Amino acid sequence: MRIAVCPGSFDPITLGHVDVISRAAAMFDEVIVLVMHNSRKGGGMFSIEERMELARRSVSSLGNARVDSHDGLLADYVVAHGVQAIVKGLRAMSDFENEFQQALANRTLAPQVETMFMVSRTDYMYLSSSVVKEIASFGGDISPFVPAEILPFVTKRALNIEKDVT
Amino acid sequence: MRIAVCPGSFDPITLGHVDVISRAAAMFDEVIVLVMHNSRKGGGMFSIEERMELARRSVSSLGNARVDSHDGLLADYVVAHGVQAIVKGLRAMSDFENEFQQALANRTLAPQVETMFMVSRTDYMYLSSSVVKEIASFGGDISPFVPAEILPFVTKRALNIEKDVT
Amino acid sequence: MRIAVCPGSFDPITLGHVDVISRAAAMFDEVIVLVMHNSRKGGGMFSIEERMELARRSVSSLGNARVDSHDGLLADYVVAHGVQAIVKGLRAMSDFENEFQQALANRTLAPQVETMFMVSRTDYMYLSSSVVKEIASFGGDISPFVPAEILPFVTKRALNIEKDVT
Amino acid sequence: MRIAVCPGSFDPITLGHVDVISRAAAMFDEVIVLVMHNSRKGGGMFSIEERMELARRSVSSLGNARVDSHDGLLADYVVAHGVQAIVKGLRAMSDFENEFQQALANRTLAPQVETMFMVSRTDYMYLSSSVVKEIASFGGDISPFVPAEILPFVTKRALNIEKDVT
Amino acid sequence: MRIAVCPGSFDPITLGHVDVISRAAAMFDEVIVLVMHNSRKGGGMFSIEERMELARRSVSSLGNARVDSHDGLLADYVVAHGVQAIVKGLRAMSDFENEFQQALANRTLAPQVETMFMVSRTDYMYLSSSVVKEIASFGGDISPFVPAEILPFVTKRALNIEKDVT
Amino acid sequence: MRIAVCPGSFDPITLGHVDVISRAAAMFDEVIVLVMHNSRKGGGMFSIEERMELARRSVSSLGNARVDSHDGLLADYVVAHGVQAIVKGLRAMSDFENEFQQALANRTLAPQVETMFMVSRTDYMYLSSSVVKEIASFGGDISPFVPAEILPFVTKRALNIEKDVT
Repeated sequence: MRIAVCPGSFDPITLGHVDVISRAAAMFDEVIVLVMHNSRKGGGMFSIEERMELARRSVSSLGNARVDSHDGLLADYVVAHGVQAIVKGLRAMSDFENEFQQALANRTLAPQVETMFMVSRTDYMYLSSSVVKEIASFGGDISPFVPAEILPFVTKRALNIEKDVT
Repeated sequence: MRIAVCPGSFDPITLGHVDVISRAAAMFDEVIVLVMHNSRKGGGMFSIEERMELARRSVSSLGNARVDSHDGLLADYVVAHGVQAIVKGLRAMSDFENEFQQALANRTLAPQVETMFMVSRTDYMYLSSSVVKEIASFGGDISPFVPAEILPFVTKRALNIEKDVT
Repeated sequence: MRIAVCPGSFDPITLGHVDVISRAAAMFDEVIVLVMHNSRKGGGMFSIEERMELARRSVSSLGNARVDSHDGLLADYVVAHGVQAIVKGLRAMSDFENEFQQALANRTLAPQVETMFMVSRTDYMYLSSSVVKEIASFGGDISPFVPAEILPFVTKRALNIEKDVT
Repeated sequence: MRIAVCPGSFDPITLGHVDVISRAAAMFDEVIVLVMHNSRKGGGMFSIEERMELARRSVSSLGNARVDSHDGLLADYVVAHGVQAIVKGLRAMSDFENEFQQALANRTLAPQVETMFMVSRTDYMYLSSSVVKEIASFGGDISPFVPAEILPFVTKRALNIEKDVT
Repeated sequence: MRIAVCPGSFDPITLGHVDVISRAAAMFDEVIVLVMHNSRKGGGMFSIEERMELARRSVSSLGNARVDSHDGLLADYVVAHGVQAIVKGLRAMSDFENEFQQALANRTLAPQVETMFMVSRTDYMYLSSSVVKEIASFGGDISPFVPAEILPFVTKRALNIEKDVT
Repeated sequence: MRIAVCPGSFDPITLGHVDVISRAAAMFDEVIVLVMHNSRKGGGMFSIEERMELARRSVSSLGNARVDSHDGLLADYVVAHGVQAIVKGLRAMSDFENEFQQALANRTLAPQVETMFMVSRTDYMYLSSSVVKEIASFGGDISPFVPAEILPFVTKRALNIEKDVT
């Protein structure tokens, strides 16, 4: 069985993420949406558990995708879980730089696991969780950017109207 | 009437900014130097009011430039003020990346407003507010980098010698 | 009166070009679509006269755009014709490199003329005359890429079925 | 069955190509090494038939890789042959630019086929068929760059000592 | 006497740094490994004194390299110490951007000092102090990344097992 | 004795080249301006002998620079002549890409020779022999771009007014 992992912060998951995950799901037997803890980056808008729940709702229509989280090195996770490929979306040049370096580092740490890149859809090219959060925090319309299933949660959290995700 | 906006943090305004603003002023009927609040980026060297005052002094010789500030999405401002173009200076490749993504995001949010880029003068290519602040904070000479009108304020503030801008 | 020029080879004009020209037409009083001779690049699919005719048909709905050609330095043309701005579309990083160097060269040769860049629509991001010609030459469908007005001419020329443009 | 295609000029195949092909072969049920005709690029060092033969010898140890050639659009080939993925190696930024644009064009032409990128091994990062040909043409040692199976053919052809590949 | 300086944060020094320093040492009469204070970047894993000690142990086999630190502008240091060249390693495109801008700034501040770039070894291309710290903090093996002389210090510090460097 | 080589086509030498050569001359005991034959690139404006003569006139004021030519691999030349460093000027991102790959290739072929990059002066950033030839061929003023010593030769050759360089 071929397993791919789509790692990220997913704070929150966007339509750009969902696009890449769907396309990976068409190529692999199973896709794991992996919410990475990144204690160095601090707080975030949603907790790890909330991010997982938002991701779960956003990929629920994909039969072979499931959500997990990991606190540690990605290389350790993929080895431990028999993952064959790390799948990432590339939006722009600066993405490429970072991803390239991470892919080389992961190859040293887990040589048997391949990193594969897909090109983002052009209409999601400027899309990131940060852009979503910035627009939402000023009350802008983020419906073109996040899955409909999670739109109310992101909108309200951004405006500091507390709403429990779970 | 054709109105352009030159948005930025302007903490503080540099000769590179002034160069782009002047060139925009030659192309448009009115140019708004827009000091953007960015609460996520935190403090800064000068307050919003001080940045506006420094900008005002630096562009006072341009008959059709005025200074404003905005706390919110740029897209909202340009729509509300009938702005036709967002004008930015490009210094380098990494500028291009960021600006490109912002321009695409703004096009989604305010389709009727065009983002236009001008190439920075080559001798201002390495110039940014951060570089100015770093050099000034070590007592280096920043006179080649900031307008003469604001040189004493930036120099003294950087060295923590308080001087009221206004 | 503010005049802009959109220079290029236009061999043939694509929907990406038309997008940039239309947006420039909204910003300036007059836009000149300038077909540049480039004797060093050799033949091309269409003659200069044919490229001009295809461009004319593609921008005929814009009231303030007209087509011209030039055999020489762009800097000489813009000075001679009182042009205020050179407007170019940027699709990608490699575009940026070339355009940046040309903009700097033109500033030395014609300091009073500004080069301004607009970001291409994301769905035209991979689009170039070369791509169009390659796809057409293999009998592929180029209707998503060129204006409907010129589709039959490009399709037939690419397949070496001679059809006089004029 | 999941089929991937690795397209290229392969004039001649290098160890960098073989690395990507091997890694694709580990991910897919079948990999097609596809020698693309590119009549616009002219002659080349080896004929299409010779390139195929050199590729065949270089991947003979891979049980699930075979060599084919195509004179036309890649998008047409992948659709006609039920290919699921186009797999390319990325060496550098400039690779990325070109590949990115091609991937977007191919998605328009053949939406059901995914382009996936792998990062080249760092020691093959500077490696291209052109580099191999340049070094070989001056009598330099190309054994670190091409598969041992094809070394004598490339060496002799580069020095214009005719040797029939087949 | 030709003196070069290799400036950096060195928190901690990596094999990538040592590679560049060694190569600079082969080109110049003396090389200064300069640990830069950067109060704006905050804490770090090691103190300035510890970074200097780790650097000293890592370059002890080079007869003409010595370690120093500086709290201020690099331009001031190089002028004060009669340094002829600033030598930096380039790993990737994004490095290039930053380094390019710093080199231009330093040329304005200290025109007589040349910045020279060397290309990193390809197997150190993804290597940075941050990568080392991230891997070490999760208990990963960092022996391919840091000099053997300092491996125990970095490993233990990353896991918060206090060990005095000096 | 430390010897550096500045390789290139020099068709013709520009002020940008002279800038890099002068700065290399300040760092090394001897600098060789090496005119590379590149039979694959075809004709050129000046013959190899003419390029050497133009280069000689342009660097005659530098006591430790001399001009040579080479028909073969650069790596072979530097090894045969005891060269310690290849010195190149970087103008832009695209330069960097090419130079990076060549530097890696040369390290494989001649491991003892270092490639070092200097950043071009910003006012020469858009400058290349091609730009000079294009401007000159249309009768534009190239005096800001080439050394005064060679200006008449380049101007006349570009306009096909034959003038013997030697």
